[in-house]
Amino acid sequence: MNFSDIPLEEKQAALSELRGVKEQLAARGWLPAMSGSLSVRVGGFAPGNYHFAVTSGMEGRTKLQAEEFLFVDAAATPSEATMLTPGEDAPIHAKIYRMTGCGAILHVHTVFNNVLSEYFSDEGFVPIQGNELIKELGIWEEDAAVRIPVVRNYAGIAELEKRIPAALDTRVPGLLLRGHGIYAWGSTAFDAVSRLEAFEFMFEALYRFLLLPPKRK
Amino acid sequence: MNFSDIPLEEKQAALSELRGVKEQLAARGWLPAMSGSLSVRVGGFAPGNYHFAVTSGMEGRTKLQAEEFLFVDAAATPSEATMLTPGEDAPIHAKIYRMTGCGAILHVHTVFNNVLSEYFSDEGFVPIQGNELIKELGIWEEDAAVRIPVVRNYAGIAELEKRIPAALDTRVPGLLLRGHGIYAWGSTAFDAVSRLEAFEFMFEALYRFLLLPPKRK
Amino acid sequence: MNFSDIPLEEKQAALSELRGVKEQLAARGWLPAMSGSLSVRVGGFAPGNYHFAVTSGMEGRTKLQAEEFLFVDAAATPSEATMLTPGEDAPIHAKIYRMTGCGAILHVHTVFNNVLSEYFSDEGFVPIQGNELIKELGIWEEDAAVRIPVVRNYAGIAELEKRIPAALDTRVPGLLLRGHGIYAWGSTAFDAVSRLEAFEFMFEALYRFLLLPPKRK
Amino acid sequence: MNFSDIPLEEKQAALSELRGVKEQLAARGWLPAMSGSLSVRVGGFAPGNYHFAVTSGMEGRTKLQAEEFLFVDAAATPSEATMLTPGEDAPIHAKIYRMTGCGAILHVHTVFNNVLSEYFSDEGFVPIQGNELIKELGIWEEDAAVRIPVVRNYAGIAELEKRIPAALDTRVPGLLLRGHGIYAWGSTAFDAVSRLEAFEFMFEALYRFLLLPPKRK
Repeated sequence: MNFSDIPLEEKQAALSELRGVKEQLAARGWLPAMSGSLSVRVGGFAPGNYHFAVTSGMEGRTKLQAEEFLFVDAAATPSEATMLTPGEDAPIHAKIYRMTGCGAILHVHTVFNNVLSEYFSDEGFVPIQGNELIKELGIWEEDAAVRIPVVRNYAGIAELEKRIPAALDTRVPGLLLRGHGIYAWGSTAFDAVSRLEAFEFMFEALYRFLLLPPKRK
Repeated sequence: MNFSDIPLEEKQAALSELRGVKEQLAARGWLPAMSGSLSVRVGGFAPGNYHFAVTSGMEGRTKLQAEEFLFVDAAATPSEATMLTPGEDAPIHAKIYRMTGCGAILHVHTVFNNVLSEYFSDEGFVPIQGNELIKELGIWEEDAAVRIPVVRNYAGIAELEKRIPAALDTRVPGLLLRGHGIYAWGSTAFDAVSRLEAFEFMFEALYRFLLLPPKRK
Repeated sequence: MNFSDIPLEEKQAALSELRGVKEQLAARGWLPAMSGSLSVRVGGFAPGNYHFAVTSGMEGRTKLQAEEFLFVDAAATPSEATMLTPGEDAPIHAKIYRMTGCGAILHVHTVFNNVLSEYFSDEGFVPIQGNELIKELGIWEEDAAVRIPVVRNYAGIAELEKRIPAALDTRVPGLLLRGHGIYAWGSTAFDAVSRLEAFEFMFEALYRFLLLPPKRK
Repeated sequence: MNFSDIPLEEKQAALSELRGVKEQLAARGWLPAMSGSLSVRVGGFAPGNYHFAVTSGMEGRTKLQAEEFLFVDAAATPSEATMLTPGEDAPIHAKIYRMTGCGAILHVHTVFNNVLSEYFSDEGFVPIQGNELIKELGIWEEDAAVRIPVVRNYAGIAELEKRIPAALDTRVPGLLLRGHGIYAWGSTAFDAVSRLEAFEFMFEALYRFLLLPPKRK
């Protein structure tokens, strides 16, 4: 689908959603020091033939202004002429869209996802079990166990991108980068926020459980 | 009492209270990922002959709209024709109304109630002692001890419902589901919020106390 | 000084301050489950011959209405005809005014003051040392150490009141009740809030320091 | 540059920025008990020949009024006639401007910077490694390690000031005072806030990591 064939209304709705989500996540402190990146897909889901609005890099952006998102195609190349450049990690978004067919991706840093991604880096995943909020990820089995993959945080995005296919588990809508943060996704921005909340709740609960002294019988 | 005999004003007040409580609890992060369920009873307290407004399931509900609560009878069956369905755990609410005669029930997930329900699951209760806020639960003895029951979180609501009568202690206005959350109740929504606050304060205090190193003399 | 001789403006200013402080403390979660009590002194400081506005008990109070404070004299008896009764702990406020000559007292429950009052109950005080915020309590020595007294939380206020003179240290503007909360005071409501903030900051810092593993050399 | 030669607009913009930053930091609880100090430089960067707006001391200030900042020169002496006096630590700000050429400095107290400055006081620095947010400090190497210096908190500012040159590392835009708080800086107030957020995120993450039990293999 050509970018110009996507209705203006759909594009504007995507930008408006992103701004709303950004405000909401910033208010919780999940975008510290202006870190993080957000995206929403538009124009249908024909493989390789879609576009998404994504956080721009700082260059070409007037600070604190509205132009903090731009549209890119499935290869993370700008969809229209613009002074803005895609954020450094736009190719990561592109890869996740390609692999999962999702509709929105949120990348945030929180203390709990940061600490657990470090603590469980040798295992390569954060293990979560028996928590009711697993259901919010779309998994309904009793005592379900979920492993959220942890990828080593290579400074180069290209290197990092290469590691994603082996790490990402399409049944689990989240991916952690070690010492860094999470990418979480869903069919819509609303859905992605809800899943992110579920992940963060479970990360904090797991972290706090790990601190408790072992019980004696 | 027939549902149609309950004055409109009483019904609207119940819905309005629920919306207010929902907003308040969501602002604290106690309804993560749109989880949780809330209810308020209407139409008097003749056993088995009352109705309550309760959180609806997602089906038939237009997201983010006002119609998130519906009225059901003592058996958790809708009180009037509606596209909405009662939330999956409406029968749990119904059972608590039946057993306690309370006027409002709040079901929320917090990290501290989640973690403690897991940590104390073998004991079957979370033990709280010597905390001033126990008075807010209506217990005034000096150095009072309270055991908040923990029920295993069976994935099936029917199974879970069966376990409640044996677990629920009518002197204690709260019930924990393991790895999940709390049901707390009171004579009014206002009262239930206050008790929930007292529970959560004491859960956090107990959790933090458990982390402290033992003292040497 | 007769209560009727105190200018109306001074009385109204005291009530207005209390409402502002209450809102501020409630927003931080320091008045969980409607617990806590606040007071401001009016009418000069002639010993035994003053009045203070203090949180009323729940009886006679219409919930959520403005009449949540009333004026009492130095013996905690209502200063004018009213349906309201002083809160249960008004005699504690009265005793602290008598012993310290302060102008405002705040009694709040926080998780950190609650947990530390329990942990250090055998010592009879919470020890704080080398924290810059000690200066905010009016103590400016380098590496100053402060001991905040902890009194056992007797269920009866009369019993509790008897223990205060032996425990209270007039150099330290705060007093902890075990498993309960803090009374903090200052020359004005503004000053008392600032000291309370300093105490709570130092309690949280002490608590978090105690959790750290010992260092090996 | 003479203070009177600096355009009014630039001075007013500096004061306005400081008020905005103060509100933002206070809302996060990073200025407990009215502690902390903030400054923004004006009038160019010719060595020794600039001025900065800085938090005033309490004397001469009408509480809760707007006049909480005043302009001082590179030696921390008031730039114009005023009832206000520079806050006690204005010479610390002056020294940091001189050594780093930065444009804004924020001094705040948080529980996490307070606790870590105490825990790592023997080392003389807080060690941070492998955290993505190090990039927000302007350091882009993979697995970069940063040491944030900790200076002993001498009660006398003059004594403290003497220790800064030996401790401050111009590659790291932050300096901790033991048991006290952090000074963080950047080219603008906006930049300084962002770096402060990055520091605090990493302090909390480091603190929480230190609490986790060691892993067995």
